[in-house]
Amino acid sequence: MASTYGTLFRVATWGESHGGGIGVVVDGCPPRLPLSVEDIQRDLDRRRPGQSRLTTQRQEGDEAEILSGVFEGRTLGSPIAVLVRNADARPEAYEHLKDVYRPSHADFTYDAKYGARNWQGGGRASARETVGRVAAGAIARRLLADAAGIEVLAWVSRVHTIGSTVDSGFVTLEQVEADPSRCPDPDAAAAMTFAIEDARRNGDSLGGIVTCVARNVPVGLGEPVFDRLEADLAKGMLSLPAVKGFDIGAGFDAVAMTGLEHNDPFVPGADGPTTASNRSGGVQGGISNGADVLFRVAFKPTATISSPQETVDTDNNPVTLEASGRHDPCVLPRAVPMVESMALLTLADHWLRQQATDVLGD
Amino acid sequence: MASTYGTLFRVATWGESHGGGIGVVVDGCPPRLPLSVEDIQRDLDRRRPGQSRLTTQRQEGDEAEILSGVFEGRTLGSPIAVLVRNADARPEAYEHLKDVYRPSHADFTYDAKYGARNWQGGGRASARETVGRVAAGAIARRLLADAAGIEVLAWVSRVHTIGSTVDSGFVTLEQVEADPSRCPDPDAAAAMTFAIEDARRNGDSLGGIVTCVARNVPVGLGEPVFDRLEADLAKGMLSLPAVKGFDIGAGFDAVAMTGLEHNDPFVPGADGPTTASNRSGGVQGGISNGADVLFRVAFKPTATISSPQETVDTDNNPVTLEASGRHDPCVLPRAVPMVESMALLTLADHWLRQQATDVLGD
Amino acid sequence: MASTYGTLFRVATWGESHGGGIGVVVDGCPPRLPLSVEDIQRDLDRRRPGQSRLTTQRQEGDEAEILSGVFEGRTLGSPIAVLVRNADARPEAYEHLKDVYRPSHADFTYDAKYGARNWQGGGRASARETVGRVAAGAIARRLLADAAGIEVLAWVSRVHTIGSTVDSGFVTLEQVEADPSRCPDPDAAAAMTFAIEDARRNGDSLGGIVTCVARNVPVGLGEPVFDRLEADLAKGMLSLPAVKGFDIGAGFDAVAMTGLEHNDPFVPGADGPTTASNRSGGVQGGISNGADVLFRVAFKPTATISSPQETVDTDNNPVTLEASGRHDPCVLPRAVPMVESMALLTLADHWLRQQATDVLGD
Amino acid sequence: MASTYGTLFRVATWGESHGGGIGVVVDGCPPRLPLSVEDIQRDLDRRRPGQSRLTTQRQEGDEAEILSGVFEGRTLGSPIAVLVRNADARPEAYEHLKDVYRPSHADFTYDAKYGARNWQGGGRASARETVGRVAAGAIARRLLADAAGIEVLAWVSRVHTIGSTVDSGFVTLEQVEADPSRCPDPDAAAAMTFAIEDARRNGDSLGGIVTCVARNVPVGLGEPVFDRLEADLAKGMLSLPAVKGFDIGAGFDAVAMTGLEHNDPFVPGADGPTTASNRSGGVQGGISNGADVLFRVAFKPTATISSPQETVDTDNNPVTLEASGRHDPCVLPRAVPMVESMALLTLADHWLRQQATDVLGD
Repeated sequence: MASTYGTLFRVATWGESHGGGIGVVVDGCPPRLPLSVEDIQRDLDRRRPGQSRLTTQRQEGDEAEILSGVFEGRTLGSPIAVLVRNADARPEAYEHLKDVYRPSHADFTYDAKYGARNWQGGGRASARETVGRVAAGAIARRLLADAAGIEVLAWVSRVHTIGSTVDSGFVTLEQVEADPSRCPDPDAAAAMTFAIEDARRNGDSLGGIVTCVARNVPVGLGEPVFDRLEADLAKGMLSLPAVKGFDIGAGFDAVAMTGLEHNDPFVPGADGPTTASNRSGGVQGGISNGADVLFRVAFKPTATISSPQETVDTDNNPVTLEASGRHDPCVLPRAVPMVESMALLTLADHWLRQQATDVLGD
Repeated sequence: MASTYGTLFRVATWGESHGGGIGVVVDGCPPRLPLSVEDIQRDLDRRRPGQSRLTTQRQEGDEAEILSGVFEGRTLGSPIAVLVRNADARPEAYEHLKDVYRPSHADFTYDAKYGARNWQGGGRASARETVGRVAAGAIARRLLADAAGIEVLAWVSRVHTIGSTVDSGFVTLEQVEADPSRCPDPDAAAAMTFAIEDARRNGDSLGGIVTCVARNVPVGLGEPVFDRLEADLAKGMLSLPAVKGFDIGAGFDAVAMTGLEHNDPFVPGADGPTTASNRSGGVQGGISNGADVLFRVAFKPTATISSPQETVDTDNNPVTLEASGRHDPCVLPRAVPMVESMALLTLADHWLRQQATDVLGD
Repeated sequence: MASTYGTLFRVATWGESHGGGIGVVVDGCPPRLPLSVEDIQRDLDRRRPGQSRLTTQRQEGDEAEILSGVFEGRTLGSPIAVLVRNADARPEAYEHLKDVYRPSHADFTYDAKYGARNWQGGGRASARETVGRVAAGAIARRLLADAAGIEVLAWVSRVHTIGSTVDSGFVTLEQVEADPSRCPDPDAAAAMTFAIEDARRNGDSLGGIVTCVARNVPVGLGEPVFDRLEADLAKGMLSLPAVKGFDIGAGFDAVAMTGLEHNDPFVPGADGPTTASNRSGGVQGGISNGADVLFRVAFKPTATISSPQETVDTDNNPVTLEASGRHDPCVLPRAVPMVESMALLTLADHWLRQQATDVLGD
Repeated sequence: MASTYGTLFRVATWGESHGGGIGVVVDGCPPRLPLSVEDIQRDLDRRRPGQSRLTTQRQEGDEAEILSGVFEGRTLGSPIAVLVRNADARPEAYEHLKDVYRPSHADFTYDAKYGARNWQGGGRASARETVGRVAAGAIARRLLADAAGIEVLAWVSRVHTIGSTVDSGFVTLEQVEADPSRCPDPDAAAAMTFAIEDARRNGDSLGGIVTCVARNVPVGLGEPVFDRLEADLAKGMLSLPAVKGFDIGAGFDAVAMTGLEHNDPFVPGADGPTTASNRSGGVQGGISNGADVLFRVAFKPTATISSPQETVDTDNNPVTLEASGRHDPCVLPRAVPMVESMALLTLADHWLRQQATDVLGD
């Protein structure tokens, strides 16, 4: 069940970088939701490699096929299976990695855990695995939009030391997609692009931060005590490749505030209490409070670099690794739809759970 | 299932701040583990209120009773139920909070979600809920120690702007427990104590960071892709009251590193590959790599403060709140065993899962 | 998680026959349900020992205490913990069974599986374990009645070779409770009582069948393919002590029918299609069809008998066992509330799941 | 999660009768298990339509493709996805069923539950759905055989009123496969064949019983209290299309025995206690006792018949249905691998769970 996520909106992903394909089964999507392959393709196209000069040059169309669960344009309530074939797989390009453990990759830990490993392009540990998540997230996006008007949007807010200025309440998808860096602050975007290209030239790589907002989230999503909304978001984000940190609202900055500085005062709103500030990031006590859900995800620099590195082989002997596989010098631009997908899956699950909670009259 | 955690080492907690008690059921603890009520009491005593002048003055002995699952000093393999009665409950002290939503508390969101709320001391949203977690964590601690030699230790590494210098590889439980602040750096501990007492005098509160290390974790714990070890740790931590952030290894600091700076070089070790540095924080690809698992947890300042605050009542009218309940001006010292408990539960679960994974010969 | 049942209406039971007590935690009961300890006590009183001369003479008041999850007479949405203390435990009465494996009991298999066993009164394998189920079932009964008008009723329809004539559509709780045998056919009840008392005198025991009906079940409960309503009912029933068989509708009798004889013709009903017969037992394709859900549960004769039996001891040596513990010569009368409890838990879970399925407009 | 089965050996099936295909994802199969597509194809060939004159004439090669999780002939520990394309789909043949509810089919209940239905060949409710189960069961078969020597075998023991004489301890796969009826008693097989062909000619259908044995099951599988081995077997069997009953060991026949007649005496065995008889069917207290696990599954007569039947249409008006789709006049022969698959999945899951239970020394 390690590749299964969610309680009611439940997804099971499968596939390796260079096997027969990548896919996902979504079990628990409500019936009668309008859904087409285009709904899925739109998000897959934002994730696929080769979409700009900032990303890996592996060429994959990543064309989705819906195999089940949709009939005459609407969901049936039965499992929705989506398949994406691997097209530009070049296992032979990884032959030299067969007996080497790349630093800060999963080669060694997979070998140690499983005693078996698909060394072609990272196998299951490849970021290509996220195709299934993004496809499922696109279905969740459609559900959340149609059923509740919830909108999820992420963007690159930092690359290495380059920050940005973005108003999380008003930034749009068009602004995010306007630049290959997926940073909606044009000045910062230009600097990030330069830094990423510079890192690639230097055989190095960069990390960064993706910020994500969910707007129009109704009050009441999240299930204390263990399944708090922020707990499930944190799990979803830390389950993504290369993620090393998560915080919500004021997050790590809250540490240096006092209670008087941090508390969000309630004020009367048109439809009930609302908060004058949003240092809580839209959740209080594990439950959404109606404000924007706002969080940050920290990505480490890509482990694959083209500079030589010291490491060991599978016989525990020291070797020097000269990497040559196709890779992203900075995963941030392509990480944006991945972050959105985990947010969408988490919110769809909690929205459904709330439908099974709020069932009795007053 | 919102109050259930874990897949194989599974705990279900229950109880409110001022109800009949607090407790936990642990389902899935292996049979034949030596276990006594003292194993549990030891950790509960570190969590209970009133243990020092830095914590709330509510007086609770928090005495645990093991109701089932243990026979003649060893676990039976059947569920272990632990009960802690509430002793010093004073519901009348909360009567004035019945119709008010305290800022950055869960009063409003619980009311909005459930349409019913125990307003006595925060009800289920009280940090008193963590009694069940800590009791279960103590059982996990015994399992991990006996079966695998794994050790988990947390400490306060920052309060507000006061940092500390602690060697995560060698710090001991005795050092952590030496000061009521639970900061093992004596100079920092003194400054933290001063700052916390100052905040209390000012009717204010402080946040901070708990750092946690798990030592002697075998290679191979963690289940990609969704149930990565760091993903489950992140969920566990963000499920704790007042937690707003989590990072592992270099964490948010990794953002400003390059790949060459961040990657951990493998070097030949006596028992197989090991890493020359530990910026990964002991996990690679979601699986433990044999290095110390090292992570940080950010706590916001306590929401309860004794200064007056603007807020609204349950009829959406503005009111001024004068808090008077017993509370911690800084949750950090008591948060240490809570953080440990979620780390212990997560590791016990993953250790058991690995037993069901590594079952076939080569 | 072996002692956990359900997906959304989730119960965790705990306790041994002679430990500190027996209990249950219900996680997922919707908020705002009126609930009192009397709701639970009513069903526990039907299950408890010593209620008639047909049952074991162990004296247990089985008084329930609600420890959490209920406030001012209504559920909070947080876990409901119920505790029943063991009162008339006499562990010393089982001292002679410490080293003996009773035939067709769980002594041997528990020892083999766990390597540890509470030999006092069967420990976790005692039918006393069902206290937790019946308490949780009573909460589910209240939910199903209030939210959907669903009613669940079981009765003893056969003891050994003595059958009965009961109209499942109209039999009432009062009729079932009118006789200690819990058979609502008075003539059959008299014969059953005689047979059970005769078996007790002969140091022997009897099995039988409990029939159960759920009325007013709305169309649409049950989740194909694995979580069909009848599949979860079957699991629930076979999880009860001493149960060896389950069938639904025409059940095993359907084997000797042809399709023409077995199919239930649809006829127009006032609120939509209905069936002219109910050989399906209220489920088609795993989903309730609006007819009464009707099933049978086969119980083996009580394994504990007072006649001498050949067996082996824990050292694998042959011994003759002279049983003397208090026991039921026929479990059927007390099995009635147990069967109801598992039906109630299963239906409550599926009713909640359907609330999370039927969420989109047409 | 309705289409997900198992806790550790976890399968998710998907697909409709006439969609893009049928498939399954197996998450939790241990790494390093030798596995080829032939292992899967062998069981699929026993399930597929058109294999004999007793079955439906729909022509499907049911060729399996392993899309992930296997590398160089061994499992990786990551999810195994298997795809079977639909070849001989003829949706137009079902056009006349679009607006009619076939008696004792799932047409009405699916429509009522989901408000959307794939009317082509029964959609998700078609027995074609079991392709995914059988494929996953074949993987479980390989695991159980390699890791524990466990063998699962089922056969047709009754069709309508025709019983058979089979020694469950010694019957072989070859004997079962020797006749298209899958009844290993040649005389009974001939009578069954005659009866099935007679029913087809008469536009009618027949039910029957499949008996299943699991041999060489180690002592200790099964997890009381809810996840008893027999409870999970019962759920697995009742989740199969057309199943109406399950019993284990003496089953419903135990009802008419006394305790003295039913109890299985323990006798000293070479490797520990064993039973002189097996009326328990290999489980005691929910845990396997080392004897053969032996159970029966009751199938109703096929709902699809070619005789005219009275029913209603989707507007609740009476209509006469003249069936013409391809179908099995008796599902029993093809049900054999389906029953085996659910037994295999259940045993594989419990075998893995026991690996995570028996982890501490004495």
